[in-house]
Amino acid sequence: MVAPKQFLDYVEANSTRFIDRLAEAVAIPSISGDASRRNDVFKMAAWVKAELEKFGVKTDSIPLGKQHIEGQVLDLPPAIVGRIGDDPKKKTILIYGHFDVQPANVSDGWNTDPFKLHFDKETGKMFGRGSTDDKGPIMGWLNVLEAHHKQGLPLPVNLRFCFEGMEESGSEGLDDFIAAEAKKGASGWFGGVDAVCISDNYWLNDRTPALTYGLRGLAYFNIVISGPGADLHSGIFGGAVFEPMNALVALLGKLVTQDGRILIPGVYDGISAADADELQIYENLDYSVADLEAAAGGHIAVSQDKATVIMARMRNPSLSIHGIEGAFSGVGAKTVIPANVGGKFSLRLVPPQQPDDIRAKVEKYLHEEFAKLNTRCSMKIEYLHGGIPWVADHKHWNYEAAKIATESVYRKSPDFTREGGSIPVTLTFAENLGVNVLLLPMGRGDDGAHSTNEKLDVSNYIQGTKLLGSYLYEVAEITGTKA
Amino acid sequence: MVAPKQFLDYVEANSTRFIDRLAEAVAIPSISGDASRRNDVFKMAAWVKAELEKFGVKTDSIPLGKQHIEGQVLDLPPAIVGRIGDDPKKKTILIYGHFDVQPANVSDGWNTDPFKLHFDKETGKMFGRGSTDDKGPIMGWLNVLEAHHKQGLPLPVNLRFCFEGMEESGSEGLDDFIAAEAKKGASGWFGGVDAVCISDNYWLNDRTPALTYGLRGLAYFNIVISGPGADLHSGIFGGAVFEPMNALVALLGKLVTQDGRILIPGVYDGISAADADELQIYENLDYSVADLEAAAGGHIAVSQDKATVIMARMRNPSLSIHGIEGAFSGVGAKTVIPANVGGKFSLRLVPPQQPDDIRAKVEKYLHEEFAKLNTRCSMKIEYLHGGIPWVADHKHWNYEAAKIATESVYRKSPDFTREGGSIPVTLTFAENLGVNVLLLPMGRGDDGAHSTNEKLDVSNYIQGTKLLGSYLYEVAEITGTKA
Repeated sequence: MVAPKQFLDYVEANSTRFIDRLAEAVAIPSISGDASRRNDVFKMAAWVKAELEKFGVKTDSIPLGKQHIEGQVLDLPPAIVGRIGDDPKKKTILIYGHFDVQPANVSDGWNTDPFKLHFDKETGKMFGRGSTDDKGPIMGWLNVLEAHHKQGLPLPVNLRFCFEGMEESGSEGLDDFIAAEAKKGASGWFGGVDAVCISDNYWLNDRTPALTYGLRGLAYFNIVISGPGADLHSGIFGGAVFEPMNALVALLGKLVTQDGRILIPGVYDGISAADADELQIYENLDYSVADLEAAAGGHIAVSQDKATVIMARMRNPSLSIHGIEGAFSGVGAKTVIPANVGGKFSLRLVPPQQPDDIRAKVEKYLHEEFAKLNTRCSMKIEYLHGGIPWVADHKHWNYEAAKIATESVYRKSPDFTREGGSIPVTLTFAENLGVNVLLLPMGRGDDGAHSTNEKLDVSNYIQGTKLLGSYLYEVAEITGTKA
Repeated sequence: MVAPKQFLDYVEANSTRFIDRLAEAVAIPSISGDASRRNDVFKMAAWVKAELEKFGVKTDSIPLGKQHIEGQVLDLPPAIVGRIGDDPKKKTILIYGHFDVQPANVSDGWNTDPFKLHFDKETGKMFGRGSTDDKGPIMGWLNVLEAHHKQGLPLPVNLRFCFEGMEESGSEGLDDFIAAEAKKGASGWFGGVDAVCISDNYWLNDRTPALTYGLRGLAYFNIVISGPGADLHSGIFGGAVFEPMNALVALLGKLVTQDGRILIPGVYDGISAADADELQIYENLDYSVADLEAAAGGHIAVSQDKATVIMARMRNPSLSIHGIEGAFSGVGAKTVIPANVGGKFSLRLVPPQQPDDIRAKVEKYLHEEFAKLNTRCSMKIEYLHGGIPWVADHKHWNYEAAKIATESVYRKSPDFTREGGSIPVTLTFAENLGVNVLLLPMGRGDDGAHSTNEKLDVSNYIQGTKLLGSYLYEVAEITGTKA
């Protein structure tokens, strides 16, 4: 343990205030996918910027251009960048996080208001949209900054920050900014960065910390089927017209088998089977089918074999159908023939799959299958967003430092995992800065990111804050760059 | 023409006020299928009751019991009953209508606020939820009452009224009331009724009035598939678990072919093919495939053959998929695996199909198909509501009177039609009162009942008011019961 006691004690002593900080952040419904909430995303950006500045970080708010959404043209939320420390003898670590969140409504099945942090002291769980994804981790960094700033402690590394407000909507605008900024070299916000740390994923389970060195990519589609000029009464028109929902359901039914085999031709091209060594990695993880089912809240694993299930979530592609836009989605019995329906589905990708190639294969397949339907409805395929899959070198000092910090704080060796979700910006940093990127999760596998009753355990928040700080000290220690 | 000029002139002279009356009714969002709007349905009931009383009708508000909906127990909206006239020498006509409406949101694609009547003077169209289904016709009866009451004109028949507020939600509670009231005979609200008139359907097209002597029945289902304990992140769980949406889409895809052939075994049992005489009726109707496609707003007819298309909407069963509850239905790209999804679909039934028998066949088929999926998700089938199909004697004096009145007002012979929609109460009246029931539509085939931008043409409203009044005079004339 190289992190000073002064830092660790401050975190412990100020945990109540740190929880209040998270509550303040959760209370801003910064939903990037909902145009009507765009002002809240801007509000959240300004809030994060002000917090950083309180603790001595020089910041800027970077406009990222315009977004065309739902027939409107909106300003994209800005990226908030920051820098603190310019000691050439220290390592420079770039921190990424996102302050936007997924949609959430009480009517989806939340037990409490999703935008009011609910701390259940009995279970130690803090419920709220963004508690774990990804406001908790951002607050963790702010807590680390506060602990050093308030006590006049020097930071062990130089820090750079890049916090965005469009992660849940494809990080629109950010890639261009990162690429342009990277080209500026030393004069840019990311000049001299030695490694990147992203805290935006989860432990495999609820007991063993994890370091993550791989991510699946994403290709998200909307099949839009149109027919009538407006919604029709099924009594008046049912039977006499081709119905868009009927065509959509037929197409959605041709994407994937019940147990998850994707039916789009060529989609598995180039993906190798796991060899014995790789299988051993999965067998070693502190994870079981029971863990997966506990996190999912149901006996619904596609297999009872541990490695099969772990590979299904980490290293194999998948396809999920998310829902239908434009059809009747309320309670009760509406006898409508919806006029325009959009079927949303996405694929999770693994190396060597590339979103553009997958997109071409999906579109070709859907056009062929649509033609077979012989409906007089029309089809349009929208490609909503995509991200490339990624795997990093987990022997790098960046991972070593995080491993030692984890062992110090949690008294446990971390699982080395690949993650099923996509964080496309990971790849953008890796490619544009040419440095190692570490995924250092704060939350647990049962946090319910994107789900109802999303939560962060208070111990993960407070220990996690210590972990983030300790990681910075271990970076300095392991690279011999202590001030 | 036997209706007095004094009546017809009054309607013409007061048309602006009659439009205001409709606007007032549309402004009350009496959505029976939405528990949060239940108070508005009660408000609408009280409004209708008060209007009837203004014009000398004795009324009562009949409580219909409780409804279990969305985990709540709500009071059902009352039926508003009324009586005016007790002359034993006159015929007694029972009028039915419903003052509840389908859900409507601007976000569904309305051009104007659905609960603010928008009168486009250029096209003569009055837009608003309930304008044609079924507030317009109820206002028509109120207009007829006002014209007689204000001018001291005696009504040519005795009238009884039964207006309900749950038609769009299966007329819950009404059947029991009608049955109980019918049993009371002369002492009940429906004592001495000679015939029933219901104005709650539409012309086939936009130019020729219609009288309707048949209705399809309904059987409405919700296939509920459950799996995870809560919504899951598709990145974290995609591929590793059985997904409810995947199972639901597979089942919905097994219900009906693209061109409308229902795939549920036994569903067509007992339905005879149309013979040459019956085909001739359809060939004679003032209706074309172009009319259907104009009303639907798209070139989506299942056939280019007139009789085939007419039979598809009038005399053959159909199956429509309405939407999915519990899945992602918003705009944008949410990467969720929904935990509980409900697929809503319904069948339109024709004689001799019976809802209970169809329900058994649907449930058997779905259980068989679900078992084949081999998913670990679970399925539950909810039967949301049903109605029996119906055909009446269209040679009865009730229809003759309406035919002559139509020819007087519109200078055109009406189409004799069967209708695709269900109005289960039609059958309830026919069975419990043992009298002829007439469906006398006010609106046109392109009104968009249940759809976005529902409208009623002002000419149909004003001429329709004259038609309703004239029909009463023709009843007295043709049955020789003039006062």
